[in-house]
Amino acid sequence: MAVYTEVGDAELEAFLAQYDIGEAESFKGIAEGVENSNYLLTTSTGQYIVTLYEKRVDPKELPFFLGLLDHLAARGINCPRPIHGRDGRALRTLAGKPAAITSFLQGLWPRRILLAHCGPVGEALAALHLAGRDFPLKRPNALSVASWRPLFEASRRHVDDGALICELEEELDFLEAHWPRGLASGVIHADLFNDNVFFLHDRLSGLIDFYFACNDAFAYDVAICLNAWCFEPDNAFNATKGRALLQGYESVRALGRDERDGLPLLARGAALRFLLTRLYDWVHTPEGALVKRKDPREYLAKLRFHRGTKSIGDYGL
Amino acid sequence: MAVYTEVGDAELEAFLAQYDIGEAESFKGIAEGVENSNYLLTTSTGQYIVTLYEKRVDPKELPFFLGLLDHLAARGINCPRPIHGRDGRALRTLAGKPAAITSFLQGLWPRRILLAHCGPVGEALAALHLAGRDFPLKRPNALSVASWRPLFEASRRHVDDGALICELEEELDFLEAHWPRGLASGVIHADLFNDNVFFLHDRLSGLIDFYFACNDAFAYDVAICLNAWCFEPDNAFNATKGRALLQGYESVRALGRDERDGLPLLARGAALRFLLTRLYDWVHTPEGALVKRKDPREYLAKLRFHRGTKSIGDYGL
Repeated sequence: MAVYTEVGDAELEAFLAQYDIGEAESFKGIAEGVENSNYLLTTSTGQYIVTLYEKRVDPKELPFFLGLLDHLAARGINCPRPIHGRDGRALRTLAGKPAAITSFLQGLWPRRILLAHCGPVGEALAALHLAGRDFPLKRPNALSVASWRPLFEASRRHVDDGALICELEEELDFLEAHWPRGLASGVIHADLFNDNVFFLHDRLSGLIDFYFACNDAFAYDVAICLNAWCFEPDNAFNATKGRALLQGYESVRALGRDERDGLPLLARGAALRFLLTRLYDWVHTPEGALVKRKDPREYLAKLRFHRGTKSIGDYGL
Repeated sequence: MAVYTEVGDAELEAFLAQYDIGEAESFKGIAEGVENSNYLLTTSTGQYIVTLYEKRVDPKELPFFLGLLDHLAARGINCPRPIHGRDGRALRTLAGKPAAITSFLQGLWPRRILLAHCGPVGEALAALHLAGRDFPLKRPNALSVASWRPLFEASRRHVDDGALICELEEELDFLEAHWPRGLASGVIHADLFNDNVFFLHDRLSGLIDFYFACNDAFAYDVAICLNAWCFEPDNAFNATKGRALLQGYESVRALGRDERDGLPLLARGAALRFLLTRLYDWVHTPEGALVKRKDPREYLAKLRFHRGTKSIGDYGL
């Protein structure tokens, strides 16, 4: 829920004059995307999204993100396609912020996750992994295992639940010692939650929000999706959804034995990652602030589930 | 900046099934409109706005607002046109809230007010006044002079500026005693600020946000627009803009002598009205809240300007 930066009339006009997409007929701030300001732009040539990158995105990383979208779109992935200006550039400045225009994707993100969504999400994730294999730029995963302890340390003094602190410390010790290495890697989305996947007429119509994309193990991305798509609102795992997601994934890209074996641990790590970032945001965001805080305890329940799993069989496959 | 209510997939589908506008191809919360949740809906038949009325709008008043939009649209005013369902109704329930679909208006509201905007705003305001004359429903102005003292009393204990409190009390005493009565009246917009007026290719393309519309003196609406459109960012009045707005208005509807004579006082009252509602919101809204607070002092400067005017000549005419 955003729109942090207002765009002036003259600056919008000058910005659009650098593209071949016509003049603005409508320009509305949209209340999605926590990290950036997003505007829905309508011109005589269609609908577009104008994104202004706010301070949580490092401008140095924008060539990676925009280049990745170009790369993936060229390989048939339904993702926002950067619109290039007459000078060939996709990234420029608007209202003092780095800004880009991308194509508008049809579809709605599912507010309630159904079994029917999970297979297509698995397929799309695998297709994304394959399409990204020859993308030349690299971006390390800034939110992988090495970042978790600093996140925890920055939050712990605000948490007055000693048992929880102990549990998280033991979890960190264990995951740091046992984190799987050497798995098949490449570009992962790293944040493929339901609000980043569009469906239209019961078909998956697009993936959005690649601003956590990075290089990491493909199976870790699968593990993130198991957390994001396969738990019910009461935080109980649904193995039917897990099976659909994994089968969907494997219908496009088979998981290696080491990836399958690593899945319980990767899912546990993914749960801890979202628990810790939510905890950090929770304790560092004033109540009633513009950004809606998400409850970290949801991921504590998920983490405890993963701690009890033994193999990929516990995820439905 | 809103979207307070999330709409579920199935309930959106069931809602749209009651209309003849096709299925949702996109549904995005828009970050405009403080009072309600607004979604931009795209279907195969075009773009629409879906509004969920939140607690600041009294459901009993929705027939007035939606009926007014129907009435004005039928008389050629470019305003959101309520879309009626197959049962003929424009108002129903979505996600537990009263909700309506209206047509989508092209255009952008001007972030920076230019002289060229002011004439068309005056014309459009007068056209609105004429078009609303035979609208049969009535809604008293809940934010007219009688409401100002209660607003002030509800805010004063939070203000630790004794001189300001004195100034506002004297202002209230004066305006209550001298408020013009018996002026030509009808439906007024009552909130025609720049974010409620769209321009497209340098022409006024539409008026939105009629949720303060009510029955009151036409000239009071003109006075609100003088406050909203004819001051520079440093709060200095710009008589050239005032003249353009008043001439634009009179090119469509002539002001009577009593309306012209009353204008300085009406403008003073309008400034006090926005000062008091902003002050109320300021002292009753927690810092950093979802709703962005507007600085009441802008209207103190405007109020002081109006206190020094003697006639419509001081507004440029």
